[in-house]
Amino acid sequence: MGATDVNKTAHAFDKTRFEALLNRRFFYAPAFEIYGGVAGLYDYGPPGSSLQANIIAEWRKHFIVEEHMLELDTTVMTPSPVFEASGHVARFADWMVKDAVTGDVLRADHLVGGVLEARLAGDREARGVDKAPAAADEKKRKKKAAKAAVVKLEDEVVKEYETVLAQLDNYSGPHLGELCRKYDIRNPDTDNVVGEPQQFNLMFASSIGPTGQHPGYLRPETAQGHFLNFSRLLDFNNGRIPFASAQIGRSFRNEISPRAGLLRVREFTMAEIEHFVDPLDKSHTRFGEVRDQVITLLDRHTQESGSSKTTRMSVGEAVDKGVIANETLGYFVARIYQFLVKIGIDPARLRFRQHMGNEMAHYATDCWDAEIENSTGWTECVGCADRAAYDLSVHTARTGHPLVVRQALKEPVVTERETPEWNKKAVGKTLKGDAGLLMAFVEGLGEEELARLKGELAQGWVLLGVNVCIDADKRFRTAVVKTQDGKEFTLTPELLTIERKVFKQSIREYTPNVIEPSFGLGRILYTLLEHSFWAREQDVERGVLSLPPVVAPTKVLIVPLSARDEFAPIVQEVSAKLRRAGVFSRVDDSNTSIGKRYARNDELGTPFGITVDFASVQNLTMTLRERDTTDQRIGPIDEVIAAVTDLVLGNIDWAQACERLPAYDGVQAVE
Amino acid sequence: MGATDVNKTAHAFDKTRFEALLNRRFFYAPAFEIYGGVAGLYDYGPPGSSLQANIIAEWRKHFIVEEHMLELDTTVMTPSPVFEASGHVARFADWMVKDAVTGDVLRADHLVGGVLEARLAGDREARGVDKAPAAADEKKRKKKAAKAAVVKLEDEVVKEYETVLAQLDNYSGPHLGELCRKYDIRNPDTDNVVGEPQQFNLMFASSIGPTGQHPGYLRPETAQGHFLNFSRLLDFNNGRIPFASAQIGRSFRNEISPRAGLLRVREFTMAEIEHFVDPLDKSHTRFGEVRDQVITLLDRHTQESGSSKTTRMSVGEAVDKGVIANETLGYFVARIYQFLVKIGIDPARLRFRQHMGNEMAHYATDCWDAEIENSTGWTECVGCADRAAYDLSVHTARTGHPLVVRQALKEPVVTERETPEWNKKAVGKTLKGDAGLLMAFVEGLGEEELARLKGELAQGWVLLGVNVCIDADKRFRTAVVKTQDGKEFTLTPELLTIERKVFKQSIREYTPNVIEPSFGLGRILYTLLEHSFWAREQDVERGVLSLPPVVAPTKVLIVPLSARDEFAPIVQEVSAKLRRAGVFSRVDDSNTSIGKRYARNDELGTPFGITVDFASVQNLTMTLRERDTTDQRIGPIDEVIAAVTDLVLGNIDWAQACERLPAYDGVQAVE
Repeated sequence: MGATDVNKTAHAFDKTRFEALLNRRFFYAPAFEIYGGVAGLYDYGPPGSSLQANIIAEWRKHFIVEEHMLELDTTVMTPSPVFEASGHVARFADWMVKDAVTGDVLRADHLVGGVLEARLAGDREARGVDKAPAAADEKKRKKKAAKAAVVKLEDEVVKEYETVLAQLDNYSGPHLGELCRKYDIRNPDTDNVVGEPQQFNLMFASSIGPTGQHPGYLRPETAQGHFLNFSRLLDFNNGRIPFASAQIGRSFRNEISPRAGLLRVREFTMAEIEHFVDPLDKSHTRFGEVRDQVITLLDRHTQESGSSKTTRMSVGEAVDKGVIANETLGYFVARIYQFLVKIGIDPARLRFRQHMGNEMAHYATDCWDAEIENSTGWTECVGCADRAAYDLSVHTARTGHPLVVRQALKEPVVTERETPEWNKKAVGKTLKGDAGLLMAFVEGLGEEELARLKGELAQGWVLLGVNVCIDADKRFRTAVVKTQDGKEFTLTPELLTIERKVFKQSIREYTPNVIEPSFGLGRILYTLLEHSFWAREQDVERGVLSLPPVVAPTKVLIVPLSARDEFAPIVQEVSAKLRRAGVFSRVDDSNTSIGKRYARNDELGTPFGITVDFASVQNLTMTLRERDTTDQRIGPIDEVIAAVTDLVLGNIDWAQACERLPAYDGVQAVE
Repeated sequence: MGATDVNKTAHAFDKTRFEALLNRRFFYAPAFEIYGGVAGLYDYGPPGSSLQANIIAEWRKHFIVEEHMLELDTTVMTPSPVFEASGHVARFADWMVKDAVTGDVLRADHLVGGVLEARLAGDREARGVDKAPAAADEKKRKKKAAKAAVVKLEDEVVKEYETVLAQLDNYSGPHLGELCRKYDIRNPDTDNVVGEPQQFNLMFASSIGPTGQHPGYLRPETAQGHFLNFSRLLDFNNGRIPFASAQIGRSFRNEISPRAGLLRVREFTMAEIEHFVDPLDKSHTRFGEVRDQVITLLDRHTQESGSSKTTRMSVGEAVDKGVIANETLGYFVARIYQFLVKIGIDPARLRFRQHMGNEMAHYATDCWDAEIENSTGWTECVGCADRAAYDLSVHTARTGHPLVVRQALKEPVVTERETPEWNKKAVGKTLKGDAGLLMAFVEGLGEEELARLKGELAQGWVLLGVNVCIDADKRFRTAVVKTQDGKEFTLTPELLTIERKVFKQSIREYTPNVIEPSFGLGRILYTLLEHSFWAREQDVERGVLSLPPVVAPTKVLIVPLSARDEFAPIVQEVSAKLRRAGVFSRVDDSNTSIGKRYARNDELGTPFGITVDFASVQNLTMTLRERDTTDQRIGPIDEVIAAVTDLVLGNIDWAQACERLPAYDGVQAVE
């Protein structure tokens, strides 16, 4: 697409005008606006919905179709035991503090970070410098700094604040409370002190069914729905591994006080992939296709040394050097990069940042975030985590349903081991109701202990208490263990023999590991809009959104000179032909100048415009306009339709279209 | 498509085998299955997700693109005031009863209906007849009748039961409780008596934010999101009306005890259209295109006369005769019909049933349901309601934000009326804090009262009490009204003059009406699967799903004779060419016979299969198999690709494909 090599104004990004455009054109708006709105909830209007739908369609093509992923659509409402097992009930929480007077609730780490940031900014202003120290993490700079007085701080204090900010993600609630008292951190909106930090679980809670006895939560991610269906998915994939499942759907997080527009919301659409892989083999058959993809990396070690200097490196090199842990992670990092660039994210403002040890989610063993730079700083838009066997293991443990792979071994593994053989009839008669517990205990013994037990049995008898438990300390004791009611049992060779046997194992059973690329579509959509926004020098009031045709809400605008009847047949013909070619167009025959109609569609990101005028009626020609350059070409109706179809499908770029269609040198209808 | 004229077995629908197929092939499954499942929650597996995605894609094309609807994506989480205004907090509820011993909760109307049905069935068996009386509403037959003893009832009692069943939708909770006592209706699972019916609101409740002071609900329909954004939508549409918004999204209903598979679930995907229309003009510009569409109707009057006899009629005739109230409703009824048939619903099992007065939702003034017959009876799958101005009016009243259309009148309306003119300075000085109330009272007076007041003023003075209120009885009284603290005010010509003035109104302001087609996609998906299911006579164990290509999860299965390397290049070539043509294919090179692979894909509804074998390598030919007939044709690779592409895109049917490709008379590879 020639749409990028444009004379975009070099003006700085004007956020006020940008937001006014999004609001005016109803890309999105605060939900329940006429009811005063609810923080963190947004509705997408027609262009926002289309943009989102197009991003999703491209995502489906790029990931699901291209990689033959297994798509899922699982429920949002989830019974509590699932999130108890996954760890979300215990750990998916933030610390909040309450304003002691108004009762307003603030997120504790954001409060501490914001106030100390503001004081540091005031200090820098007082010192006459305004540069943040390089070592400080940029992520912390994102929170809109509360206004603080221009006051010079002691050098000692500046250092202390910077240390606190660098470690903010590490602090527990009580620690954050101490910081508030120590540094007299107050609610910046009211200047009131705040109370002790309390934990607040970020899942929306509800109740399933009419009894009130089945607590449920709205999922904060779609991932659990994949894990719970693992056995069915494996079966659907004919028992083969690796494979990936994918899901696009709504998730919910009851954020404490969201204030960052689409970047921190309480309800959002995610696209998640769970790639199930053999823990012993995380290679990827298609890695060769992405090996040479160069990306920008910010690894863990660099950050831990206090720097945020990025490195440009091919994915192949990153995996070879061990910067990225394995091929599968590397493959997805590269594919995520390619997807984001394809839909229009500026590659110069896209980096992959590795999580440091202290910030990793409770389930992850390694994680790379695709971060996109925007007016608020660097924002995590895609996470790519190696969740290892965490999830499948916890659900297996909780439910007893084995979420494992059984793989036929090419060469059977032969092992020899001590094996207990019970005389079940005698056991049942002697031990009665305690038989099961005791048998399980013996079966659970290790090789060495079984050998010892074998020796004891060879001596004729063994005394075993019945209150032993396989979960308890498994060492075998010959000492008499009395049961709670004082009973004792004698284990004899008549009940049990232990023999050394040879086993041939032809099946390997294992819990797969999971590599999870997880996309926050709202954040991607928002940063894409920022990256696409600019204004023409001659008309800074109106913006242009240079969205690539692949995601643009409308591909082609058809503009009849006026709503006169004589244009209608051509408009209908063009519209129908484009529809048949799979190109989504809209007609704008509103009663306003062609220039105004095009300007409106520049704001909607419509890449091409077709003007139907008297020449169309008389000479059967139309003009074709390109949004970013405002270049106009002219040609016979069918040739213009063919050219614009090729442009939209990405078969040609604007330069190639210009070779096919001569420049329009007639009187500019407007502009 | 030739896919319908098939030698399908005439066997009765085998629900057990059908459900086994859906489960085996993971179309959908109970959510949280390994945790024991939760009633009314289902997950869609890969074929179910694809089928749903394809139905949605076709829906988008058929409605949104075709009609230039404005798509929306609004939030699920909704603050309580919205549903207080809409009436859902007060009225979106069912009556439930509790088993007095176990505490199990049952839906009261289902309990009464089920038990009386069972007794009538027992009675019929005792009498040696087993035909339901024609007059009884079939909808009531749906509930799986609890087993009741074969006992002959008094003729009187039979009549009473039938009357109760026919009116079941009319009963309030207390009435249902009386019926339980009168007829000794117990929980059929336990034979325990049940308690008094209580109302249970069907919305899932939650709380927004950390304070616990902002109750929220999960939306039970997407509609409110459209209404709240009405002003933005109207603006986006350049202030023109009629227009329609559309939304596809998740909704939630906390059903009391759902037991009907996908037909009654607690979480579901809907597709809803809100068509905003001038209440004075419900014509539709495209009505001519659907006027001749013949559909099956069951109108209100027929049902109220105790019959369920349907009528075949064109939509044009139905609107002309007033059976369907207006063109817009009729247009959507026809378009819904065309959509359902296009995706594969059997038109012979599709009818439109008009709601009777007593069963209409609280917001609707007229409603037609698209009902589809399946193994449980006739099921509502699409509602098409005229919600009139209800929703926009209640939100306007609650928020003060006028959700109205302001339309420039072609001819201004000229009116003359008595108009109060205040001397504001004097009024403020004389009446002080009571001025506003009194002015509003006078402004609110009718023409006649103003004329009287004018007369009074002409006499020099008027006494008006200040505790009058514009909401109260608006008749104007000259009698002295004392205020609560005994104050009296004198209204004089110095404060107020009333003059006859001429007004020219060039804007008409009105609240539009809403026609709402609302699709339950899960119900449509399920009934479509039922309608598509059959089994070959020679292999009743395995089923076939005759899904039309437009919605089939996979369009083409590519089957190499084996996983040998020599087939790989051709498989890749075919796969790539189909992808480029926009045809979704899958390769099955699993280690099993071609016949088994085709049988598996018959169960997945894959309409076409391509076999790559030695002939493909030697002669560059492939065979093409049609799912329903199992016919096989042969041709050069590119011709087969061209034919299957045309088949999938609906350009040709199987008969036409057979003209292009000769029959395959080689050794059947399998089958």
